[in-house]
Amino acid sequence: MEFSSKFLEKAIEEIALLPGIGKRTALRLALHLLKQPQSQTTDLAKALVDLKTKVKQCKSCHNISDKELCGICANQSRDHSIICIVEDIRDVMAIENTEQYKGIYHVLGGKISPMDGVGPNQLNIESLVDKIKTGKVTEVIFALSSTMEGDTTNFYIYKQIQASENTLKTSTIARGISIGDELEYADEITLGRSILQRVPFENSLKN
Amino acid sequence: MEFSSKFLEKAIEEIALLPGIGKRTALRLALHLLKQPQSQTTDLAKALVDLKTKVKQCKSCHNISDKELCGICANQSRDHSIICIVEDIRDVMAIENTEQYKGIYHVLGGKISPMDGVGPNQLNIESLVDKIKTGKVTEVIFALSSTMEGDTTNFYIYKQIQASENTLKTSTIARGISIGDELEYADEITLGRSILQRVPFENSLKN
Ligand SMILES: [Zn+2]
Ligand SMILES: [Zn+2]
Repeated sequence: MEFSSKFLEKAIEEIALLPGIGKRTALRLALHLLKQPQSQTTDLAKALVDLKTKVKQCKSCHNISDKELCGICANQSRDHSIICIVEDIRDVMAIENTEQYKGIYHVLGGKISPMDGVGPNQLNIESLVDKIKTGKVTEVIFALSSTMEGDTTNFYIYKQIQASENTLKTSTIARGISIGDELEYADEITLGRSILQRVPFENSLKN
Repeated sequence: MEFSSKFLEKAIEEIALLPGIGKRTALRLALHLLKQPQSQTTDLAKALVDLKTKVKQCKSCHNISDKELCGICANQSRDHSIICIVEDIRDVMAIENTEQYKGIYHVLGGKISPMDGVGPNQLNIESLVDKIKTGKVTEVIFALSSTMEGDTTNFYIYKQIQASENTLKTSTIARGISIGDELEYADEITLGRSILQRVPFENSLKN
C-alpha cells in the first residue's frame, strides 16, 4: 500500500510493530488520532515514554514498580514469610484483585521453555533461591500456569529449594482452575479460592 | 484492576482510548513495550507526534499530505479534469492500489448522516462545488460506499453540481462491489474494474 504522507507511513509502521496489530488496524488507529484533538496524541506519546523510562522492577520481587521496592514488598502488614511464585506481573494483578492473599510475590518473568530457548538463567530464579536461603521464608506457593513449561519450572525451583532448606512448606494453588488455562483469565472467585485451598506441592506430583 | 505503577496505569488508560482496544489489550501492549528495547517506544512516540503535528490536508482534495498539495494533485501527468469523490483517505489508497485510475480525487471526510449529526457543512462539499464551477472538470465519479448515507450524499452533491454545470458528465463506480460493502475491503481487481466500468450517475438512480 502506498501512502500520501511519509509521516503517516512511519506511524503505521511503528504501530504495526505492536503484537496483534496489523497494518490495516494501524492505519485505522493513525487516522483516528488524526481526527482527535492533538492533546490525545501527545498524552499517549508521553505516557508511553514515561512507561518505558520511569517504570522500575521491584528489586525484591521483580514486580513492576515506580520505586525501588514495590508497594507489596514495602507493605509491612503483609506476611513476608510467604512467597507466591508467578510467571508474570499480570498474575500478581490477578491474585491481588481477589483480595485473598496477604503474603508477598516473586515474579519469574516467564517459564522454563527449552523450545523457546528460555532456561533457568533467563528467569528470576537465583534471587528467589537467595531469598529463601535467608531462612525467613516459611512457605512457597507455586502459582505458575499448569502447562508443561509451568510444571517444569515448578519442579526445577522445587529441587533448588529442597537442597537449600528442607523444612520449608511448599504448596501449589488448588486446581480449581482448569488445566492449561492462563491465570490472568480466571474469574476472581475461582482464583481466590484456589489460593486459599492451596495444596502441598508434593501432592501435585502424584497426578 | 489495581496497578503497582502509576506510569503503567496512565499508559494503559491512554492506550485504551484508541478505538477497539480495551484495558486488557492495553495492558498486554504496555507490557510488551516494557520488554522491548527503549528505542521501540521512543520511535513509536515520535512517529505519533510527527503524525499529528506534521501531516497536512491537501488544500485541493483534502487527501492526507506532507505538503500543501498532495502528490496526486501535484502530479501534472494525471487528468485533472476527472474527479473521483470518496469519503475517506483510505478509499484514495484503495483506488490508487488498483493502478487503474489516472484522474484526481476529492475526499469528503465522511457522509451526510442526520443520525450522527453530520450535515453537508461538516463535509468538504463546498470546495468540491467551487472546483467544478471553474469549468475545468469534465467528469465527476461518485465512489462513496453504497449505503443509505452514501446515496444521500451522492444525491446532495449531484443536485449541487447540476445547478452549477449542466454539461458535466457524472458517473458512479460499477457495482461490482457488493451493496453495503466498504470500499477499502474490496479486492483490487473488483475495485479496479468498477472504476473502469463506471456508469452514468443517472443510471444508478433507477435501481
Ligand atoms: Zn516487590
Ligand atoms: Zn490533493
